[in-house]
Amino acid sequence: MSPRRCGTVYLVGAGPGDPGLLTLRAAELLGRADVVVHDRLVHPDVLARARAGARLIFAGKEGGGEQVSQEEIHGILIQQARLGRQVVRLKGGDPFVFGRGGEEALALREAGVPFEVVPGVSSGVAAPAYAGIPVTHRGLAGSVTFATGHRASSAPDWSHLASSETLVLFMTGKRLVETTSALIQAGRDGATPAAVVEAGTWAHQRTVEGTLSTLAALAEAAEIGSPAMLIVGPVVALRAQLGEQAPSNAEASHPVERASAGGRHS
Amino acid sequence: MSPRRCGTVYLVGAGPGDPGLLTLRAAELLGRADVVVHDRLVHPDVLARARAGARLIFAGKEGGGEQVSQEEIHGILIQQARLGRQVVRLKGGDPFVFGRGGEEALALREAGVPFEVVPGVSSGVAAPAYAGIPVTHRGLAGSVTFATGHRASSAPDWSHLASSETLVLFMTGKRLVETTSALIQAGRDGATPAAVVEAGTWAHQRTVEGTLSTLAALAEAAEIGSPAMLIVGPVVALRAQLGEQAPSNAEASHPVERASAGGRHS
Repeated sequence: MSPRRCGTVYLVGAGPGDPGLLTLRAAELLGRADVVVHDRLVHPDVLARARAGARLIFAGKEGGGEQVSQEEIHGILIQQARLGRQVVRLKGGDPFVFGRGGEEALALREAGVPFEVVPGVSSGVAAPAYAGIPVTHRGLAGSVTFATGHRASSAPDWSHLASSETLVLFMTGKRLVETTSALIQAGRDGATPAAVVEAGTWAHQRTVEGTLSTLAALAEAAEIGSPAMLIVGPVVALRAQLGEQAPSNAEASHPVERASAGGRHS
Repeated sequence: MSPRRCGTVYLVGAGPGDPGLLTLRAAELLGRADVVVHDRLVHPDVLARARAGARLIFAGKEGGGEQVSQEEIHGILIQQARLGRQVVRLKGGDPFVFGRGGEEALALREAGVPFEVVPGVSSGVAAPAYAGIPVTHRGLAGSVTFATGHRASSAPDWSHLASSETLVLFMTGKRLVETTSALIQAGRDGATPAAVVEAGTWAHQRTVEGTLSTLAALAEAAEIGSPAMLIVGPVVALRAQLGEQAPSNAEASHPVERASAGGRHS
């Protein structure tokens, strides 16, 4: 055992992108953490809330650049905590909604490292909301299913997903053709309203709307990229009345004193 | 038309209870709103962030005390905005996850009143998280369904709900017997791990765990009340390893200067 007292690892949701959707607890922990281990989908204004001198470690698993495996991430979290440091593990959205936070929590428990979970605003609710789509709505959808196309082993239960009143599918950027086809094959009406939201709640958020049959071609024509979210169900039609909403101008309303670059590794 | 410039209505999620899970944007808007229209499931420390002199209007629809209909709430929001006031409509959890925010947004749109949606941390993710249950987990649950037992008209699609990898059912306090029976009748294995969380993320949070077959009796014996949330699926078993977590001590970490009572109506 190290003579130092073990630090705590905070598994923190950074919210969907818009820095105004960070929680007070997350902001507080960022402001006093020694180490921040973050992934790619965290807004720079959120990272800028880390205290000056905090060490920032990028541990993204997608997109270009370095790739860090899940096991390596566990190793980093455990090692840093055992050095007596307070560690914020910062994830886009919520740590337990396709964030692999459960695996990290189990690894920490097994290693005897204390941890705390700080839930965040999920992209699965906020991205549709900014696009003018309430994921539930009286009379239209009394339930909503969140799913991901990226699965460890088995294929998704398309029949279950197709019968969702509202279906929100994470990270479908490059699989929209196969996903929408699979849902139709599993029995969902091709005329069901559907939308894809790219970079939901970020300044460059874009939405393409159509039906389950037409959406993939429309999204391809619009060159919708990643990260993206597919929303299927009658609630999508409410968008025509509710309209899109721009991200809150978080820079203006929450001035952040940028921590100096000294002592940082990002 | 009033000569005054119409105010904006902010449909704001207050998060699940723990005041540390309020968003920065919500805290900012509360600090400058003229009127706060709130429901029953909002923590007093969150309400205390309203600026001194703000008018607090209770518009709860459940529990004891006054009952305010959804149409009356629409009327209050529209009237206050037309008086030129900045209005925060504060709801437990997220406004679009069984919060009836979509109906309020439509009513405001129809009345020509500008509005903005501020998503919140959903109780459906945070209450299980505090109880040691990640709603998704690699290899155990690649999707999660959020549903409510309280429906406007038609019965829930029990067959769809029963086939959810993880099912989170809101507000099942008094319907646990019929809900768990309906899921078993619709084909879910009675041996599936299940838990009910009362007052998730609040200081008085309580969790009872069992299987789909045994849970209702266990919850009754423990006198689980409302608000409560039912969680069904293999992820519930992770609780044995992850353990419960207490709400963050938000009072200590986010000192709030309590607004004086003068000029307030609550």
